[in-house]
Amino acid sequence: MQVRTKNRTVNNRPIGIFDSGFGGLTVMSAIVEALPSESLIYFGDTAHVPYGSKSKDIVIKYSKEITSFLMKFKVKLIVVACNTASAFALSTLRKTLKVPVIGVIEPGSKAAIYASKNKKIGVIGTEGTINSESYVREINRISRYEVYQQACPLFVPLVEEGWNSGEIADSIVKKYIKPLLDKKIDTLVLGCTHYPLLRETLKKNVGRSIALIDSAKATAQEVKSILEEACLLADLKSRKFLKFYVSDNPKKFQAIGSRFFSKEMPSVKKIKMIS
Amino acid sequence: MQVRTKNRTVNNRPIGIFDSGFGGLTVMSAIVEALPSESLIYFGDTAHVPYGSKSKDIVIKYSKEITSFLMKFKVKLIVVACNTASAFALSTLRKTLKVPVIGVIEPGSKAAIYASKNKKIGVIGTEGTINSESYVREINRISRYEVYQQACPLFVPLVEEGWNSGEIADSIVKKYIKPLLDKKIDTLVLGCTHYPLLRETLKKNVGRSIALIDSAKATAQEVKSILEEACLLADLKSRKFLKFYVSDNPKKFQAIGSRFFSKEMPSVKKIKMIS
Repeated sequence: MQVRTKNRTVNNRPIGIFDSGFGGLTVMSAIVEALPSESLIYFGDTAHVPYGSKSKDIVIKYSKEITSFLMKFKVKLIVVACNTASAFALSTLRKTLKVPVIGVIEPGSKAAIYASKNKKIGVIGTEGTINSESYVREINRISRYEVYQQACPLFVPLVEEGWNSGEIADSIVKKYIKPLLDKKIDTLVLGCTHYPLLRETLKKNVGRSIALIDSAKATAQEVKSILEEACLLADLKSRKFLKFYVSDNPKKFQAIGSRFFSKEMPSVKKIKMIS
Repeated sequence: MQVRTKNRTVNNRPIGIFDSGFGGLTVMSAIVEALPSESLIYFGDTAHVPYGSKSKDIVIKYSKEITSFLMKFKVKLIVVACNTASAFALSTLRKTLKVPVIGVIEPGSKAAIYASKNKKIGVIGTEGTINSESYVREINRISRYEVYQQACPLFVPLVEEGWNSGEIADSIVKKYIKPLLDKKIDTLVLGCTHYPLLRETLKKNVGRSIALIDSAKATAQEVKSILEEACLLADLKSRKFLKFYVSDNPKKFQAIGSRFFSKEMPSVKKIKMIS
């Protein structure tokens, strides 16, 4: 399906993207912004959400099933738009799939290294992401930085409840962030795709001097670079589409999803997964 | 396996009990207290936790798979120790299983009716339990009471984080409870098996005049009555056992589970479920 036009090759096949639920929609939204001509197929594994508290084995199992589903659409690239699945399943998926697979941890780590001046980076995420130490490993693979981590299990339900700001959000943010501030970090990675919705509350409570790294935006830029380098960008005139699939509760996904996805949500279809 | 001894029949087969995760351990704990001679087999569906935000169809599917597993142990009775599964799956399970099936909603409703004087009952629970309106239907099936409901999605992660009391717990409890207090309820049903761990914080914030109904205790009493009536109680001298199975993360279950289960936790085995 690759067509050489003038000086470049185009590829109008869609990009596949998945997450355990809604969170990955912040990544999808950033990709749509960075690459407005691309078609995207999103899968939210709402039957198994959240991944953050689950084991590595089961997250790998779910990730394999979802990517098999996405491959049926002949996607040209897959984005693992979930920090926990990126932490646990990325290397397995890269071994088994024949298309590039992009996670959110590598782009987030690179952006944090680029932003930090005192080489002290804080990372917040779900229990799964934090326990996996994936950000620590990825940052230290690139350069020697001090990395301080904090699991924030209340952030996801806080965002899903819509309590992104206010007294309760402030107290919870303060409690989780304090140990990181004590370490004098100058950069904070939002290591969960739900967290961009807490950006203002985080900014208010960590202070303006600390750079907040949104993995969603960093990942969208990484997707753009890879497609450009591999000459896999879609034709500007292509008839692009956005499709949404979930494993449970499509109505709820559409209702809450619109908060995460800054554009209008088209219809959402439920797919029966093996598990 | 029924043996008639003197004036009563005994049955030493175990009781099966399940929940989406840890919460049901509060029910198990209450049963162990009320019926110290009984053997119990607990299944925590940690691969699919939480049920509270999932659809009816998928909760029924999971509940059927779990009860098939429990039936392999020739259990004499099954306790659905999860409000969401009780709300969604109880009638289906009762149709298909050949042993008595006890949920937590009926005993909780009965206890609330017994406690309320002004006939105004508040119910707090997960999104799934509240949207199902199961407590409203069950209470009104027995008698005409005003029932006011409130979904409290932050309570479960709050308890799992161990923040059962303190400033954050107080603010979250106050915010959720206010609309119910405005309705002048005199009884509050803790319609989720995690909530007994918030009992003290709830008591402090709703005031001493409001009766708090713990479905776990009410359910244990119901199990006792049914076994007594059906002459299915275990022999006092039986070699009783407690077994724990989960669908994911046995280590985490054992670590957090001990907070919910007031006794020492024996080893926890992981079972591969179909889904």
